[in-house]
This record gives sequence, structure tokens and C-alpha cells, in this order.
Amino acid sequence: MKSDIEIARAASMKPVTEIAAKLDIPGEALQQYGPYKAKVAAPFIGSLKDRKDGGLVLVTAVNPTPAGEGKTTTTVGLGDALNRIGKKAAICIREPSLGPCFGMKGGAAGGGMAQVVPMEDINLHFTGDFHAITSAHNLLAAMIDNHIYWGNALEIDQRRVVWRRVLDMNDRALRSIVSSLGGVANGFPSEAGFDITVASEVMAILCLATDLADLQKRLGDIIVAYRRDKSAVTCRDIKADGAMTVLLKEAMQPNLVQTLENNPAFIHGGPFANIAHGCNSVIATKTALKLADYVVTEAGFGADLGAEKFFDIKCRKAGLKPKAVVIVATIRALKYNGGVKKDALTEENVAALKKGCVNLGRHIKNVRQFGVTAVVAINHFTSDTDAEVATVQAYAEELGAEAIVCRHWADGSAGTEDLARRVVEIVDSGTAQFAPLYKDHLSLFEKIETVAKRIYRADEVMADQSVRDQLKAWEAAGFGDLPVCMAKTQYSFSTDPTLLGAPEHHSVAVREVRLSAGAGFVVAICGSIMTMPGLPRVPAAEGIGLGPDGEIEGLF
Amino acid sequence: MKSDIEIARAASMKPVTEIAAKLDIPGEALQQYGPYKAKVAAPFIGSLKDRKDGGLVLVTAVNPTPAGEGKTTTTVGLGDALNRIGKKAAICIREPSLGPCFGMKGGAAGGGMAQVVPMEDINLHFTGDFHAITSAHNLLAAMIDNHIYWGNALEIDQRRVVWRRVLDMNDRALRSIVSSLGGVANGFPSEAGFDITVASEVMAILCLATDLADLQKRLGDIIVAYRRDKSAVTCRDIKADGAMTVLLKEAMQPNLVQTLENNPAFIHGGPFANIAHGCNSVIATKTALKLADYVVTEAGFGADLGAEKFFDIKCRKAGLKPKAVVIVATIRALKYNGGVKKDALTEENVAALKKGCVNLGRHIKNVRQFGVTAVVAINHFTSDTDAEVATVQAYAEELGAEAIVCRHWADGSAGTEDLARRVVEIVDSGTAQFAPLYKDHLSLFEKIETVAKRIYRADEVMADQSVRDQLKAWEAAGFGDLPVCMAKTQYSFSTDPTLLGAPEHHSVAVREVRLSAGAGFVVAICGSIMTMPGLPRVPAAEGIGLGPDGEIEGLF
Repeated sequence: MKSDIEIARAASMKPVTEIAAKLDIPGEALQQYGPYKAKVAAPFIGSLKDRKDGGLVLVTAVNPTPAGEGKTTTTVGLGDALNRIGKKAAICIREPSLGPCFGMKGGAAGGGMAQVVPMEDINLHFTGDFHAITSAHNLLAAMIDNHIYWGNALEIDQRRVVWRRVLDMNDRALRSIVSSLGGVANGFPSEAGFDITVASEVMAILCLATDLADLQKRLGDIIVAYRRDKSAVTCRDIKADGAMTVLLKEAMQPNLVQTLENNPAFIHGGPFANIAHGCNSVIATKTALKLADYVVTEAGFGADLGAEKFFDIKCRKAGLKPKAVVIVATIRALKYNGGVKKDALTEENVAALKKGCVNLGRHIKNVRQFGVTAVVAINHFTSDTDAEVATVQAYAEELGAEAIVCRHWADGSAGTEDLARRVVEIVDSGTAQFAPLYKDHLSLFEKIETVAKRIYRADEVMADQSVRDQLKAWEAAGFGDLPVCMAKTQYSFSTDPTLLGAPEHHSVAVREVRLSAGAGFVVAICGSIMTMPGLPRVPAAEGIGLGPDGEIEGLF
Repeated sequence: MKSDIEIARAASMKPVTEIAAKLDIPGEALQQYGPYKAKVAAPFIGSLKDRKDGGLVLVTAVNPTPAGEGKTTTTVGLGDALNRIGKKAAICIREPSLGPCFGMKGGAAGGGMAQVVPMEDINLHFTGDFHAITSAHNLLAAMIDNHIYWGNALEIDQRRVVWRRVLDMNDRALRSIVSSLGGVANGFPSEAGFDITVASEVMAILCLATDLADLQKRLGDIIVAYRRDKSAVTCRDIKADGAMTVLLKEAMQPNLVQTLENNPAFIHGGPFANIAHGCNSVIATKTALKLADYVVTEAGFGADLGAEKFFDIKCRKAGLKPKAVVIVATIRALKYNGGVKKDALTEENVAALKKGCVNLGRHIKNVRQFGVTAVVAINHFTSDTDAEVATVQAYAEELGAEAIVCRHWADGSAGTEDLARRVVEIVDSGTAQFAPLYKDHLSLFEKIETVAKRIYRADEVMADQSVRDQLKAWEAAGFGDLPVCMAKTQYSFSTDPTLLGAPEHHSVAVREVRLSAGAGFVVAICGSIMTMPGLPRVPAAEGIGLGPDGEIEGLF
């Protein structure tokens, strides 16, 4: 088998105009970035609004393990297979972050025969969206400090500036800094810090905004600081919302590329899946739904975090009605959930697999709470045995679900045809009755409890009085209708990353709550959440360079 | 008269493929960024190397004043006029920095009828070059701290890390910070800081590198820190040079856009003109010279800084042989140099003008020291009187030079035809005998003295023993052959910004010297140099936004 990068390089890409033509996007509606990347222009998107929507399919997964699940790969494989069986289909996935490419080896554009291309571009600067977000975010930061410097007419309490800065780089040295040292000309020394760009609220906003006017409104709503009396100062007060919108004008347009099989792929936006909602942009998803009959999208992490947020934040806010859900599982990941160590995952172990299937089972049941039918995709590895596959299929059947073996990694769309046919059946059946898990009018704490009890199956939610008071204060300030965005470990249903399988009777402790008033959700932080990664001992960057033929080496 | 932005918007742009065709660049050699911007692909540039070069013309100016001189405008006007009189001509200018657009109002793409377009794109993210430089620069910074964090095998003295970080933003709060606070996981607390991206040595390197191999070599040569024994640690030691080159691969390709009159304009790179050399990229200039018979380029600030560095750094290093020089002057700027206050510049004042002409005179004489003939372009303002124009022309004639009135701002190329004809005469005469001001083998201090005495007309250069010792140490380490890059005020020949005209008998104090080993020059800092601007009391950003028609407002 060739490596991902060898396959990607051997790909026979078609001009992006031809890919666009598959969705009847005319050439003049494209802003090209070289021959294989394009943004779909805003006026064209505006012209689509009266068309009917295609069917939306979510790809989610069991809890992540070191074994890997292949959610993006399955999304790509399913999209290709839908095209293969004659459907007009597109995929919508997130843009990868540049910084982490230089840390641990590996990009984020699928793998094997199920990839999006041009892979290097997508993993590096792509069309500059993340750079635009970085600029817009940091302009606001500079304007806040500048406002204080020139007299602080808004009476900001400089100890309560909550707007940090961002860089698309893994740089632990910037997590916690003191800024404005060096004397009067540099401002007032303050505690400050940087997050990685994907953790920016601007990223979450770009991914939830429906158009430029909505984008500016949401940017204006960002709370950047508080006064001594605890009243909030917004981005609009700082008068940064207009300039930020200008910086994001191009970035708001979805990017179109292609899969290895020359099918259309929208890659747009990529918010963190813990402190934010972890889905590609609403504008890309909505555009794809107007242009294709079937749209396959994915959400971050496992279904407990990613699918829940997809449903309760993205679909709720954007009015999306998903028609089917694919839950990706690997035999390896389920064995890991059944207690097998990482280095023994290639050995057949039906007993452990049976034990680990409870993780999958709970995700299937959880997804049903949203009124959508789930089908399981077994992302096949060569080490999987027939007995193991049969075990998972039998388990799924017991729950009234179906588990379909998918071989897109090795065989591309040919390996995912069965899944595609089943997905089409589910979508076309019209049985989906999507509804979010909780109503807007519940209290913020009740919303947190609902997710913790019904999705994580915790017995209780614990929180200090200060956290509860903060939630009440936000309700009093008019933010009570917002959904909650849970930030917890992705490795377990619980807040303890070592509790695999389907833990019960655990407690969820909410350490801290944060208001993302522009994005439109309240973040409940349950555990230690890192918003600025560091580089490993030997960063992947050390091995990255141009080869003798000018090709990029070491990036994947 | 319409505003710059109104003119730019009313421009009838042609597809960049048509602009490229004027220089016989085939469509497949372009990487398009939308219909009006393109990068010229590296393989095509490589294929040009055996062609003969066109004639290179430098546009420089008298010392900058608050009145404005219009160097970029004149460069654009001259390029258009050369095309108008039937010559195959292109211009090469710098990319504007994004950060300052949000500070003081005003972009940097020419003005009036002499502009480059699409103006908003050029002034905002353009083709992402500066973002790529920011990423490459900050990757190196993260890798240095990461190296120290994981055991510091290179034995870096963490107090002597000289590689700062950069952002393309005016943010005074980041000038001086303490990083790595917050505990063990975040590294070792250190003094650190950010410069604006145009001040990055990576920017200077990108602008001096001849190809990707040279780029990587120069990046590797960057000195990032010193050990306790004062020995240098380089970017190559950190193993960041390969990954940085990958990040800069696209950015190394020159950008092609057009003037309002649909003539080709290369806009590529934009290093600071004080701590760096202030010229557009070597690769853009060399590419243009292979494609056009006449290439008009500009250098930063006045001729004392910009032209001197263009000659002594860019031309010396790249083997360029300029054929003619245009010195831009305005009647207003010369009156200001003659002692007239800013608010009285529109009144006729021949006496003050005569007095101020000494500034122009010295620049004319200075340029001749490089073996190139200078012609004066009087960038005409409506308030200029005939008597004033005649005064400048008579003054230039006394020096054996010619001063030609240019009306490109009001009339476009039609207003600059006379200048174009004279420039063609000078270039075609073959009389230019370009040579840098000093030889490589002089000591570093002698080089500084040469510039100070022969260009600034100082009597002496003062420097502490520590500065002289540092220069000697670099000579001993093999850096003695490098040219010097003078960082001083742009407003005067001296280091005192208030000494207008043509001051003599002054002293130049070198406060500090810095080694840009990758770019290949030694920076001599004479006075206070700001490498991270701040925002003004009312930043331009407050007035920037999208208008009701979706057009960008307030940017210019």
C-alpha cells in the first residue's frame, strides 16, 4: 500500500471548475486560488436561497482512542460512494489547523483512497481563512489595549479583559504572559495570553454566521471585558466589529476542493470541539444542501461531544434538519474500549470486543434521542477478523441497528457502496424527526444537567456556587436562551479520560463557565482544557522540508 | 476630483491573464487568486534565466515630509507612461503591511490616476505572503522555546534568545512581554516581545533570496540565540529551516496585478526600510527584468536611506545594474525643507523653496556617486505655481540635472510622458556605470563611516567601545564581508529628525548593532527605531466596515 501522500500526489486532479460543474456552480461564481481550490462567491450563494435542501447526513464516531477511528476518511468515502451509485452528493468537512502540522506528524485530509486534495495546500495556508481569523481576532485585542491606553473612556477593568490573543501555532510559551512591559509608551502591564486560532470565538462565529450581516452582528456581541461593576464591554463598544468583518469578508466564502475521486468537497472553518462546537461552517453546509441531493458532514471527537453539539448548537441555531447519522467505529477502537492495550489491538479478541461494544451501543441510543436513525460504519482494518466483524454486526442488530463494513481506505468508493445505499434508504425514508435534546427555555444549569444525564449518563452535575451564580447572572442579562457547549475529555463519556466503555453513576464537575456571546453559547468546562498546544520533544517540523524535486516532504 | 477609492472602484480591470500576456507570460504559468491577482509560478521563472535583462530604473525621493512626496504614485505613473509611449514596461513595488491600515487611515497602492488594483485586496490579505512570513517566523520562535523546554541540548542561554515573534498588527502591548508564565508546563519565564511582520528578518530574507534553495540557506543562517560562551545558535541548529521554507514556498512567487491603465505591476515583499533594506523582492525584480524592456522599481523613504540600501544591499547582493534614477520631489516638500510650516505649504514661497532645494541637490549628488544618472520628477500639486516650478527646474539645471513636471496623479500616464521619454533616453544611452558605494573588504565600521560621511555628510561616527568590539567579533566570525544597513530617522540626512535641508558637520551615533546573518547585513541603529507601531487615539479601524452595497468603507 502506498502512503497517503504518495496516493495524494498520484491523484489525477481535475480543474476546480469541473468539480464545481458537478454541482452546477458556474465558473463566474468561483474565486479560484490556483487551478484546484476555489471559494464559492457570496452573491451566487445568495441566489440559492429559494432552492430546496438536499438530505443532510452526519458522520460521527465512538469515543476516540489511540487506535484511530477514521471519521474524516469515512466521510470522504461515503461522499464518493454516494456519487458512485449515481447520487448528486457533496461532503462538508473542517479545515485543518496549520500549527499542529508542525507538532505531531500528520495532516487532516482523510487517508488511503479516501482523501481530499490538494492535500499540502489544505494542510498549510489553504485559502487563508485561518490567517484572516487570526488577524481579526488580534485586531480586536490590539484595539482593546489601545482603548485603555488612550484614556479608557469605557472604564474597562483592565484585570477583567477576557479577550486573549491567538496564533495558529503550537507555542506553549505564549499561554500565559505579561504584556505591556517596558514603560509608559507600551501601556499598562497586564496578564494576557494566546490560544491557538481554532480556539478563537471568531472561528466559532464564522462557522455559525449565516451571512456577512450576521457575522458582523455576532462579532459585535463578543464580550471582551468587564467593568469594575461587572457590566460587560463588547466588541461593538470597542468599534472593532466593522473592521473585523472586512478582514473576514473573503474567509466567509466556503472553499471548494475535490476528493481523490474528483467529487466535490467543501472544506470550511474548523472550531475547537471542546470549548466550541467543532463543526464546519453553517454557510458551507447550507450552500452544499442547496447544490447537492445528499450532503455528508462530520462533527468533532465522539458522538457524546461532536454529535451532541452538532445537533444542539449547529442544527438548532441554523435550522438544519439532519436525516441520518453514521457512527464510525473500528474493531480496534472497540477492543481498546474493552480493555485491550494499544500494542495488542491487532490480535483477535472477541471477548474484549464484546465488552467494548457498549461504547458503540450508548452512542447509538444517544443519537436516537435526537430523532435520527443511526447506522454503524465499521471502518475496516486488515487485522480485523471475520469473527470480530460478525460480533459487532450482531451487537448492532440487537439494538435494532445495522453495522456495515466499509473499505474506503483500501478501495475508495467501491468499499463504501453498501453504506451509501443504506444511508440513501434512511434519508429517503423521510422518517427522521430531528429535535434538539433540550428546549431553549430551560435554565442554563438544567441544560448542562440534561446533557450530562441523558448523553453522558452521569448521576449528577456538581458546581460551586460561584459557577451557579454566574449562570444565573447571564440568564438575568438575557443569555438564558443560549445552548450550552460542553468542554470535557473526548476519551470517555465521563470527565475521566480513563473510564472507557460506557461508564455510569459518575459525576460531572463544572469547574468554570464562559460566555461566548457572539458565537451564541455558554461553555461549561468540565476538566482541564488546553487551548494552546505545545510542540513535542521532536516536532514534526524538524523533518519537514522540500525534497530534491521540490515536493514537500515530512508533512504527513 | 474623485477619491482614490472611487477611482479604484471605477477602474475597468482586465483579467490578470491579459495583463500577463502583455509580458508574454502564458496562462499556465499563473497561479490565480481570483480573476485579478496571480502568482507567477516558480518553474516559469526558472525557465527565463538565459534571457537578457531589461533596463532597471529606480524611483527614490527627497527626505519624507508631512507634505507627502508620492513615490509609489510616480512609480506607477512612470510605468504607465512607458507603456503609453510604446515600451514594454513593468513596475515592481512593495506589498503594503496589513496592520497599519487599521491605524492611520490610508492604504499603500498609489493614488489618484496612478494606482495599482484591486486596491482593497492589495491592502488586506492579498495573496497571503505576509501571513506566511508571520507563520514561518513564529514557528521558529516556538521551536526555540520548545528546544529549551525539552532539555536544551544546544545549551542556549535563554537570556540571549534574540529571535522575537511577529504579528502584522499595530499592537504596542506586545512590544515587551514576559512569556512562559504559569508553571512548569509552560516553559521558563523569559523576556520576549513582538515586532510587526515587515520587521521580520524572514521578510528581508524572502526579499533577497534568489530561489527556494537560497531561501532555505539564508533561513538556516539566521542567528536565533547565543550560548553562555557567546557562540551563536542558528535556525539550522534548531532544524526549523526546512519547515519554514515549506511555509514560504508559495510566498516566494511574485504577485502580478495591474495599474489603473491595465499595465503589469509586480507587488512582492515589503521589508522595513530602517532595520532592513526596504525594497521589493529580488525575485520579482529579476523576473520583471527578464520579461520587460523597462522595469521601474522604488525604494523606501528618501534616497539617503532607500536608494543607498537599494544600491549597497539589494543591487550588490543580487548583481543588479540599475540604469537610471528618478528622484521624486514636491514643491511642498521642498518648501517644508526650506522652513515653511505644514499649514502654509499651499502658499507660494519662492524664497523658502530655493532654500529647501538643497535637500534635493544633495540627493542628486549622492545618487551620482553610484554611477547612475538621476532625473528629478516634480510630482505636481494644484497649488504649485509656475514660478515655483521654474525655481526647482533652474536649480536642477545648475547641478546639470533635469527636473520634469509630472501630472500622473491628475492625468495618469498622459501626465508623465515627458519623464518617461527622458528615462528611456538615459537608460538607452548606456552611460550608467553602477557600482556600490564601498567595497566588501572594508571593515564593518569603515562601511558605516563611508555611508555616514559620503551620503549623510556627517563629520564623524560615534560608537561605544562595546559596539566597536561587537563589529570586530562579527568580522572574526566571518561576517566582515557583509554590507551595512543603516537604521536612522528618514526625515533628515542626520540622525536628528528636525535638521531639514542638507545639514553638515553633524555626528552619527551608532547606539547598537544587530546581525541579520540570514538576510546578509549588519544593522547599525542610529537613534530610536520602533519595530512595533501602536494604534492612534482613534484608529482607522473604528471607521472601517462594509457599506450597504457590500463594499469596503473607511479603509482609504
